[in-house]
Amino acid sequence: MTDSSRAFPLTREAVQGAHQLIMPHIHRTPVFTSCTLSSLASTPQSPTALEGTAHEGHTPAHPGINLFFKCENYQRAGAFKSRGAFHALARLSDEEVQRGVVTHSSGNHAQALALAARTRGIPAYVVMPAISAPSKVSVTKAYGASVIPSGPTSQEREAVVAEVIQKTDATLIPPYDHSDIILGQGTMALEFEEQVREIPGGEQGLHAIVTPCGGGGMLSGVATAMLGTGTHVFGAEPSFQGADDCRRGLATGSRITTVKTLTIADGLRTPVGEIPWSVISDPAKVRGMFAVSEEEIKRAMALVIERMKLLIEPSAAVPVAVVLFNEEFRKLVQEEGPWNVGVVLSGGNTTLEAIGKLFAAS
Amino acid sequence: MTDSSRAFPLTREAVQGAHQLIMPHIHRTPVFTSCTLSSLASTPQSPTALEGTAHEGHTPAHPGINLFFKCENYQRAGAFKSRGAFHALARLSDEEVQRGVVTHSSGNHAQALALAARTRGIPAYVVMPAISAPSKVSVTKAYGASVIPSGPTSQEREAVVAEVIQKTDATLIPPYDHSDIILGQGTMALEFEEQVREIPGGEQGLHAIVTPCGGGGMLSGVATAMLGTGTHVFGAEPSFQGADDCRRGLATGSRITTVKTLTIADGLRTPVGEIPWSVISDPAKVRGMFAVSEEEIKRAMALVIERMKLLIEPSAAVPVAVVLFNEEFRKLVQEEGPWNVGVVLSGGNTTLEAIGKLFAAS
Repeated sequence: MTDSSRAFPLTREAVQGAHQLIMPHIHRTPVFTSCTLSSLASTPQSPTALEGTAHEGHTPAHPGINLFFKCENYQRAGAFKSRGAFHALARLSDEEVQRGVVTHSSGNHAQALALAARTRGIPAYVVMPAISAPSKVSVTKAYGASVIPSGPTSQEREAVVAEVIQKTDATLIPPYDHSDIILGQGTMALEFEEQVREIPGGEQGLHAIVTPCGGGGMLSGVATAMLGTGTHVFGAEPSFQGADDCRRGLATGSRITTVKTLTIADGLRTPVGEIPWSVISDPAKVRGMFAVSEEEIKRAMALVIERMKLLIEPSAAVPVAVVLFNEEFRKLVQEEGPWNVGVVLSGGNTTLEAIGKLFAAS
Repeated sequence: MTDSSRAFPLTREAVQGAHQLIMPHIHRTPVFTSCTLSSLASTPQSPTALEGTAHEGHTPAHPGINLFFKCENYQRAGAFKSRGAFHALARLSDEEVQRGVVTHSSGNHAQALALAARTRGIPAYVVMPAISAPSKVSVTKAYGASVIPSGPTSQEREAVVAEVIQKTDATLIPPYDHSDIILGQGTMALEFEEQVREIPGGEQGLHAIVTPCGGGGMLSGVATAMLGTGTHVFGAEPSFQGADDCRRGLATGSRITTVKTLTIADGLRTPVGEIPWSVISDPAKVRGMFAVSEEEIKRAMALVIERMKLLIEPSAAVPVAVVLFNEEFRKLVQEEGPWNVGVVLSGGNTTLEAIGKLFAAS
């Protein structure tokens, strides 16, 4: 899928180069702090909270955690994906750019690519399963993309993409398995480390960054950006129905390529991609992966929305849940901390209707 | 209820004095802009949107509106009420302060007063109906207040307040009918006008500010702060079950003192107070009041939460609804604009459960 002959090497310098290119087009999103959430993260969980887990009966961890939140929910098109999309387009040749771009996605990447294409004044073709939520189709169209329906399976989807490419000669920009996308997502971390140092209490910089991991574009980008800085990089996944494919793959040493999960963190249902895996599976780059339950994701999501007054989508709550509820992560910080921990609030694209459904039954 | 012998006159200078006093204790909350909402506000409503209203069949207004949002949902304790509470406490004598403060409120004022009292290290007594939502009681207690239950009627509540005062000699700090509270709330407007001038597109400052109006503390404070500046000040109320008591009172020239409404904008169910009325009823200070329907409030709330990713409570959506949907306001801006319009997002104290109930049925 990627034109590796032209791909930039995955280095911190290449991320800095990407940042220069996309800066005119993206928001330098704000970094928030929260006394309430930092204090909660630094308080041991109750022993009853650990019942039924591997940590039942153990003394709950007592880490020192000072939290910083990078608000990519305020990024253009509502998620970090705009960084990768603008960068991938910036790297196309003049001739390629004229022919337009194509992708298959029903999520934030589709909207980001549509926005980036509109900004360049070129066509964007987005292949979406015909059964996609009408709201997602209309948002993608509102950003100026041509939405082309496909069948629901990945084979059907790829057949339609191939058809579009044959007709239009558009360039495929996949959502994460592409080095320009990875470098673009990594720019988030460059801003994050600078911004934290300007905040009272953040003078020491970030000891750790925790990002969500679906296809792994963001996690591998952040790990690339942080190379040599001393900041530990961690990934966060839902555990529901095996959505923690990256964590499980690392345990066995080989990438898991198929996942079928309906986790509420719908941006993280996809297995980790090949190029992201090449970064994430290097323990010098990503120090660990942690998984959390659906209930923990919901509790973290409610805390961020109700206490911090920030709208985030479920996927963005996953790293927050790791910091608050994952005992393995918390024991690590207890041993090595206290730490300034940066959490990436990856996106805010959800609706009150969806929130109503998620939280009505609870 | 107020010690008028000691009350400061309601002048812009007095608001500036209040600001100096409370600045160490409150947040200078951010001002947000939104291309999406400004563009929506500057687009005529569809003729069908006006069906069944007094404007049916008329050409929809086409105002030029550049919106600025003052995010008091990020204020301490989650609402602008902290401004008035910290100011009222700052104005007490050393002797009074030692005896503590008392109020009756089940809303944002109770939490704000509890926070201000805790900061001063003095007791706060909050009289709340025994039937109050347990979540509201526990939040108020979490801020360190003693919560004292009362019966549900205002007579029963006032009897308990009188009892508390007799026992403790605490000073009553009412939620809005008090000049120190009004001056405190007005400090919001001093920050707002400064901040807007620093934002690209806001160099001309604010032509108008629209604030919610319940008891009228915020609206009268803003009108006081803006005296002589040329900024037009408007109030926004729900129309449901007569909650637009201030608008109706102005139409007949006399204050309405009783309102029974269950509008979703629960911070605005109370009738306007006597001292706020003395300001609001002066057309040189407040230029107009506008009312909106429950459906309009919900639509505005969804737009702010989903598009701006900001959690606001229903009361905070009321001025947004006026700007987007009230044809009288919109015709006025069409005639006199284009305007920079400042909207006060007054608070963010709601829960996902409450949002679920509000939006599940829609």
